[in-house]
Amino acid sequence: MINVTALNNVPGFARGLVRDLRVRWALEEAGLPYAERLLAHGDLAGAEHRARQPFCQVPTYEEDGLALFESGAIVLYIGASSTALLPEDGAGRARASAWAFAALNSVEPPIAQLAQLDFFHVGEAWVAGARPGVMAAVRRRLDQLAAWLGQDDYLEGRFTAGDLLMASVLRNLRQTDLVEERPVLQAYLRRCEARPAFGRALAAQMAGLDSPQ
Amino acid sequence: MINVTALNNVPGFARGLVRDLRVRWALEEAGLPYAERLLAHGDLAGAEHRARQPFCQVPTYEEDGLALFESGAIVLYIGASSTALLPEDGAGRARASAWAFAALNSVEPPIAQLAQLDFFHVGEAWVAGARPGVMAAVRRRLDQLAAWLGQDDYLEGRFTAGDLLMASVLRNLRQTDLVEERPVLQAYLRRCEARPAFGRALAAQMAGLDSPQ
Repeated sequence: MINVTALNNVPGFARGLVRDLRVRWALEEAGLPYAERLLAHGDLAGAEHRARQPFCQVPTYEEDGLALFESGAIVLYIGASSTALLPEDGAGRARASAWAFAALNSVEPPIAQLAQLDFFHVGEAWVAGARPGVMAAVRRRLDQLAAWLGQDDYLEGRFTAGDLLMASVLRNLRQTDLVEERPVLQAYLRRCEARPAFGRALAAQMAGLDSPQ
Repeated sequence: MINVTALNNVPGFARGLVRDLRVRWALEEAGLPYAERLLAHGDLAGAEHRARQPFCQVPTYEEDGLALFESGAIVLYIGASSTALLPEDGAGRARASAWAFAALNSVEPPIAQLAQLDFFHVGEAWVAGARPGVMAAVRRRLDQLAAWLGQDDYLEGRFTAGDLLMASVLRNLRQTDLVEERPVLQAYLRRCEARPAFGRALAAQMAGLDSPQ
């Protein structure tokens, strides 16, 4: 049985955004059942979890003695066993992997910086000086992404693990109008979120968040 | 023939750090010959390069009609054909992929933020307010990484693509003493940089940077 760790409680701004959602979504796309292990925030730095996740984060993935961490790696690992997430040919898989890394290393960093300013440093005097540069970096990446997508439904024509991760990253802008200001990206995100597998994954994450600690 | 794009000129703080180094290093570890295509900074936003790299960055990788971008994806793709970079078993490969994503999505973002402050915003008034939080985030990740490594030579015992990327990320702290302050990480980085393949890759990148435009 596949086992995934998630959190049992997070602040409102993070509800529906914690990264176990990406793994749940991939498992739903692949049609793979899984069990969840809900952790309290205080469990993350404990020795048991650190052995699974050196950086004290969720999610982790365990299956038959294999223990994995990092949502990007887990999603690609799940994808390797399902054509719902990755094409069968090596070149197509490599392209989807490129988009997975692009989502997490080229697009997410400025978006995460913006969220840090908006949720963790709100009201601090220096934020007014920092925010314009971060906003410019986010806008640049969004414009480049929209230019690539153009009229296509997905980044490589068909849905892949790269879209799953890119859409997950774009959702982290929900405190802004930056996606809505770009109709191509708004339609892309809605298209990804309309997938039944996403809906099931989100419902499962939210149900876990409502669990008693 | 494999073709890799790189830059022909960068500011001093970026010399020896541009990400084509990661791809050159992987190719040297795998023993694969390659040709380089040196670009001027002004070429990055041009239509020809954007078709290869939607975010106007280097490196890219081309081979027999396959075009890849994102250094993390390229390094794992090269690794799939060489046991010098990835174990042969699926579980070992998945673990190395986890470390590749950890390097680029858990460790690099705060390190890149610190470099932004130190190289692009130096002297701006708000930086004094921003820097303590970024430094704390970097220190946290470095301490977690050192705790994982302990007495081991490499993240998973033997050198993998995950070490290649993690060491590359740690090199982006050279304007600080943060690695040197942690003997485990200092020894790890020296161990990785002492690999002959790294030396050849760095020499090739530096030679390209000295080319006339």
